[in-house]
Amino acid sequence: MTVASQHTDEHLYERVAATIAHQIDRGTLRPGERIPSVRKLKTKLGVSLSTVLQAYMTLEDRGLVEARPQSGYYVRLQPRELPLEPSPSAPSPVATKVDIEELALSVHEHNVDPLIVPLGAATPASELLPTKKLYRILSALCRRQESESNRYESSAGNMEMRRQIARRSIDQGFNPAPEDIIATSGCTEALNLCLRAVTRAGDTVAVESPIYYGVLQILEALNLKAIEVVTDPREGICPDALASALRRRSVAAVFVQPNFQNPLGCCIPDKNKKVLVDLLAHRGIPLIEDDIYGDLYFEGNRPKALKAYDRTGGVLLCSSFSKTLSPGFRVGWTVPGRFLQQVRRLKLTSSISTSTLPQMAIAEMLRSGGYDRHLRRVRKAYASQMQTMIHAVRRYFPEGTKVTRPLGGNVLWVEFPEGVDSLKLYDQALQRRISIVPGPLFSPKRGYRRCIRLNGGNPWSEQIEDAMIVLGRLAARMV
Amino acid sequence: MTVASQHTDEHLYERVAATIAHQIDRGTLRPGERIPSVRKLKTKLGVSLSTVLQAYMTLEDRGLVEARPQSGYYVRLQPRELPLEPSPSAPSPVATKVDIEELALSVHEHNVDPLIVPLGAATPASELLPTKKLYRILSALCRRQESESNRYESSAGNMEMRRQIARRSIDQGFNPAPEDIIATSGCTEALNLCLRAVTRAGDTVAVESPIYYGVLQILEALNLKAIEVVTDPREGICPDALASALRRRSVAAVFVQPNFQNPLGCCIPDKNKKVLVDLLAHRGIPLIEDDIYGDLYFEGNRPKALKAYDRTGGVLLCSSFSKTLSPGFRVGWTVPGRFLQQVRRLKLTSSISTSTLPQMAIAEMLRSGGYDRHLRRVRKAYASQMQTMIHAVRRYFPEGTKVTRPLGGNVLWVEFPEGVDSLKLYDQALQRRISIVPGPLFSPKRGYRRCIRLNGGNPWSEQIEDAMIVLGRLAARMV
Repeated sequence: MTVASQHTDEHLYERVAATIAHQIDRGTLRPGERIPSVRKLKTKLGVSLSTVLQAYMTLEDRGLVEARPQSGYYVRLQPRELPLEPSPSAPSPVATKVDIEELALSVHEHNVDPLIVPLGAATPASELLPTKKLYRILSALCRRQESESNRYESSAGNMEMRRQIARRSIDQGFNPAPEDIIATSGCTEALNLCLRAVTRAGDTVAVESPIYYGVLQILEALNLKAIEVVTDPREGICPDALASALRRRSVAAVFVQPNFQNPLGCCIPDKNKKVLVDLLAHRGIPLIEDDIYGDLYFEGNRPKALKAYDRTGGVLLCSSFSKTLSPGFRVGWTVPGRFLQQVRRLKLTSSISTSTLPQMAIAEMLRSGGYDRHLRRVRKAYASQMQTMIHAVRRYFPEGTKVTRPLGGNVLWVEFPEGVDSLKLYDQALQRRISIVPGPLFSPKRGYRRCIRLNGGNPWSEQIEDAMIVLGRLAARMV
Repeated sequence: MTVASQHTDEHLYERVAATIAHQIDRGTLRPGERIPSVRKLKTKLGVSLSTVLQAYMTLEDRGLVEARPQSGYYVRLQPRELPLEPSPSAPSPVATKVDIEELALSVHEHNVDPLIVPLGAATPASELLPTKKLYRILSALCRRQESESNRYESSAGNMEMRRQIARRSIDQGFNPAPEDIIATSGCTEALNLCLRAVTRAGDTVAVESPIYYGVLQILEALNLKAIEVVTDPREGICPDALASALRRRSVAAVFVQPNFQNPLGCCIPDKNKKVLVDLLAHRGIPLIEDDIYGDLYFEGNRPKALKAYDRTGGVLLCSSFSKTLSPGFRVGWTVPGRFLQQVRRLKLTSSISTSTLPQMAIAEMLRSGGYDRHLRRVRKAYASQMQTMIHAVRRYFPEGTKVTRPLGGNVLWVEFPEGVDSLKLYDQALQRRISIVPGPLFSPKRGYRRCIRLNGGNPWSEQIEDAMIVLGRLAARMV
C-alpha cells in the first residue's frame, strides 16, 4: 500500500478509500472482518487522522463498511452480492411415523472428534465458551467444599440458579417465579419431559419444516408422529398453515423454535407470535417452545419468547446453557406453565435431579454479570463469522446455491442446485474429515435432499475456509 | 472402672472381661462399636498385655466381641437379642397399573432439607462421601482448563471412565469392553433407558416385592404394569415364584436388585443367580439388573452381578456412583448386553450425553485407587451403623417389631406389629422433622402398610438416636 502525499488534499482520502475498497473486493478484507483502526492506518500511511476518517466515512456511505460503536469499522455484508435465500418449505400435509436413524448419532460422535472439521453439529467453538471464568467459579466452589454441593439437588433444581433465570426471563417478555422453573439435563431432557407431559404414544405433534433433527429423534423414541408445517426462512412457522393443519387432523402438541430456529435461523415476528399462541390457547393445544438460541441475537434487543404471550399456561418453554456457557455441563431448564407438576414428577423419575455443582457454578456466572459480558462478546463473534460463512458459500459453492441470512444463532441452511445429493456429500466430506448435516435429517419424510446445515459456531480460520472450498468442489461435481 | 491388683493372676482377666461385658450389656459399648485397644486398656487398668489379651479372647469365645484384622476388637451383634426378621413377601399374583403419587417426590425433597433427620431417602451422609478428594481432582481438572472438558462428551460417555469401570467389573464376575458400557445421568436414567429399550407402553414387568419405589415411579411414567414376585428378606426374589408368574402371564422384562436390595437388603445366593438368569435366557425375556449397592458389602468378597451368568446378552446391568462417591454428580452407567445400540440411541435422544467434568473426575478417582480406599472405609462404617440401628429398633420400637439383617448396603426394612399405620407414622414423624419412607410406596398395590424403610446411611449420633426413640414412641401409641 503506497500513498505518496503526506498532506491532506481533496483526493487523498479518495485514494485511501479506494485502497481499502480494493482489499475488500479481492477478499483480503472479508465481510464481517474489522478493517484497520483509524489510528493504525494514519500511522501506516503517514496521512492525517481526518483523511482516514473521511475515507472511512466515504466507504460507509457506499455501503462497503459499517461503524460499530466502541469497536471500529467492519466490512459489511453486501446484500446485492449474496446468494438467494431458500423459499418457504412445502412439506407434505400427511402425518408420518418418524424414522430417523444412525445418522444423527454419527453426526454427534463426529462432532466430539477433534480430528474432524466441525461444520456438522451446532456447537460453539471452544474459544467462544467462557471456560476460564466458569472453571474459576467451579474451583472456588470446590475449595469451599460445601457438603450440600456433593448431594442430590432438589428435583426442581438449584434455587439460586432458578432465581437468576427468573430475573433474566424479563428480557424474554415474561416474569416467572423461581418456583415456575425446573432445571434439566440440557434442553434435550426438558423437551423429553415436556413432550411426555402432554402426549401419549401414537399422538401427533405439529412441527416446523425443516426441523431440528434432535426433536425428530425424541418424537421417534416416544412413538409420536410428526406433521410438518410450512416454515418461512425469515418469519418461521406459518400461522395460517398451522391453523389449516389443525383443522385437518388431531394434534396433541405443537413444537416451535421461535427465535433463530435450527436449521433455518428464522425468527417469528412478534405479531405472529401472538397469533400463534392465541390460536393454540383457543384450541387447548399445548405449545412446546425451544428458545435455546434467543440470547444469541446479532443486533437490537432480545427477541421475545412465545411464553411472553401465554395467558393460559399452555406454553412450555425449554432452554439451556449448552449454546452459550457449557455444552458439557448439561444444564437446561423448562418453564412448563400449567404442566408444572407433571413435568416435575417426570423429572424425578427420569434422572432424580440435575447435576448439583454445575448448577451452582452457572448461578454464580449469572449473578456476577459474567454471563451478560460473555454474551456481548460472542454475539459480535457469531454475527461476524456467520457473515463470513455466507460469503464463503457465495464464493465457493456452485452457482445457484441458496443460503439463509439469520439474524442470530449459529447455523446456516444451504440449498444446493439440482443434482446435488446431500447424503452423498455427507459421506464424501466425511472421508475428507469434514462434518456437515445432510438435509434429510431435518424432515421425517427425508425431504431436503439438496440441503445441508452448516455450523457457524467456529471463528473463521484457514481450516474452515479450506473445508468450505472442498465442500464447494464436491457439490460442484454433482451439479 | 477399677481393677485392684497390678499383677496377673488367674482371675484378673475374668474381671477385665466382666467389666467390658457389663459395658456392652448396659449399652455403653454398642454393637458394632470398637472396644478399647489392648494397649489402651493395659495402660488404663495397669494390667499386663497378656491379661487384656486373655480377657478379649474370653469375650470373643463367648460371642460378645469379634476381632477384625488390623483393626481391633468390636462389639458383636447378638443374634439372640435381635428382633425377628420379616417373612418372605406374599404379593398378589395379579398385574396392576402402577400408581405411586406425590409421596415419593415429598420423600426426595425432605431428604435435601437440612432441617430434617434423614431416615427417609437412601442416601449416604456427607461424612461418608469422599468430597474432599473428589473436589481436589475436580479443581485440578479446572486448572488445566482442557477445552474438551467443557464440551459435549460422546453420548456413550467418557472413555477413560468406561475403561476404569470395565476393569472393576471383574469383581462383579464379568469382563466387558469399555465399548459395552454407556454412561448415564445416574442409575435412574440407566433404568429408564433400559426399560424403554425392551418394553412398550402397556407391557408388564415382573419385580421384587417389596421393591424400590423409584422403579415403580419409572414404570408408572412409562405406562408399564408391574407384577410382584415373592421375595425373601435374605435370599431375594424367589426363582420358583418367578417361574410360576411367567407361566401365568406374558412379561416383557424382569427387574431385579440382586445385591443388598432396596428395601430388604437381601442378597441372592450365587446358585439362585444362575438359575434366574438361565430361566429368563431360556424364555428370551430381558433381565434388568440394578447393582447399585453391590460395592457396599460388609464382609468377604463382593457379591457377583447377575450379569456374571449372562451368556445371551439378555441382562442389562445398571449402576451408579450415587451411593458411594457423589449423589450430586449424577453419574451412572449401564452394560445393556445385546440391547447396546438401542440404549445408546435412547441416551442420545434423552440427554445427548452425560456431564463431562464429573465423569473425568470419577475416572481419576477410580484410576488412582481413591475409590477403593474410600470403599474400605465406608464399608466398615455402614456395617457398624447398620448394626447399631438394628439394636435401636430392638431397644426403642414396640415389642414384636421385625427388622431385616442386611449384609451390605444402607437400608433397613422394619415391620411393625398389628395396628401401626406407616402412612400415619410418616405424617406424624414429619411433623417432628423426621423423614422415613412408608411401606406402601414399595408396592404398586400399596401393601406393606405396617412397614417402613429406614436409611442407615448416617453415622450414629444423638440426633439419630433421638429420632429412633420418637419413632418408637409414635409407633407404640398405634399398637
